[in-house]
Amino acid sequence: MTSDCFQVYPIGFIKKQDSQTIITIRTAYKDALLGLDQFSHIIVCYWFHQNDTPEKRNTVQVYPRRDKSNPLSGVFATRAPLRPNLIACSTCKLLAIDKLKITVNEIDAFDKTPVIDIKPFIPSRRSLVDVKVPEWVQSKASRKK
Amino acid sequence: MTSDCFQVYPIGFIKKQDSQTIITIRTAYKDALLGLDQFSHIIVCYWFHQNDTPEKRNTVQVYPRRDKSNPLSGVFATRAPLRPNLIACSTCKLLAIDKLKITVNEIDAFDKTPVIDIKPFIPSRRSLVDVKVPEWVQSKASRKK
Repeated sequence: MTSDCFQVYPIGFIKKQDSQTIITIRTAYKDALLGLDQFSHIIVCYWFHQNDTPEKRNTVQVYPRRDKSNPLSGVFATRAPLRPNLIACSTCKLLAIDKLKITVNEIDAFDKTPVIDIKPFIPSRRSLVDVKVPEWVQSKASRKK
Repeated sequence: MTSDCFQVYPIGFIKKQDSQTIITIRTAYKDALLGLDQFSHIIVCYWFHQNDTPEKRNTVQVYPRRDKSNPLSGVFATRAPLRPNLIACSTCKLLAIDKLKITVNEIDAFDKTPVIDIKPFIPSRRSLVDVKVPEWVQSKASRKK
């Protein structure tokens, strides 16, 4: 039943213009947006297309936030844009939807980045309690990009 | 720069045995787990492989939670397992990591589901305020699966 490889197609692209971040959805998916305007926040899944090389996809460990004072970590323990499958997920505030254009507050992605899914943000039914993260995540110094 | 199609490879599989949910990671990605045990929660991205047919991937609207009393919605406004790219993301409590086996509290996926990414759960720096969802999300009746 399980294939060895799955195909992912862009459903739209990120456009950065002036200070705005707009996701332009492909015409074929216009009807897939019905009701999205009822949500205040959305999860945008996109593809780190600039890193789609065998070398970058085979990178299994990095220094988080490219800061060598952070502990060397497995890519699955970071949000690094180097990973076997170049999937990113960002939760964004939805500002407006105008036909095929979705305006969000901001997204940490380059202009022309392919978007591969949009999901509504639904707060967890089981609230996330006792959340624990390593020290490097909390470090103020390493938050600077 | 942008390709029309990207390749996604399973990095592991979900195994449901007894009451446990275990993610078995492929040997090639053992080192990508370094430091993951420092997090209490992880985001598991998986592929709705049972729906990987052109018909299901071309479905753009559904009744959320398969309940026709919910408003017909675009798939991007739901978490439905029918969508152009069959990507699911679940935030799970990390219970244990033993070599290539990651035990989590639960995950709403079938046995043998391909896992395509693991990310650490990091609470938002900008806390999510004024979250708004449509009525069907809140409806108790429609929460029953």
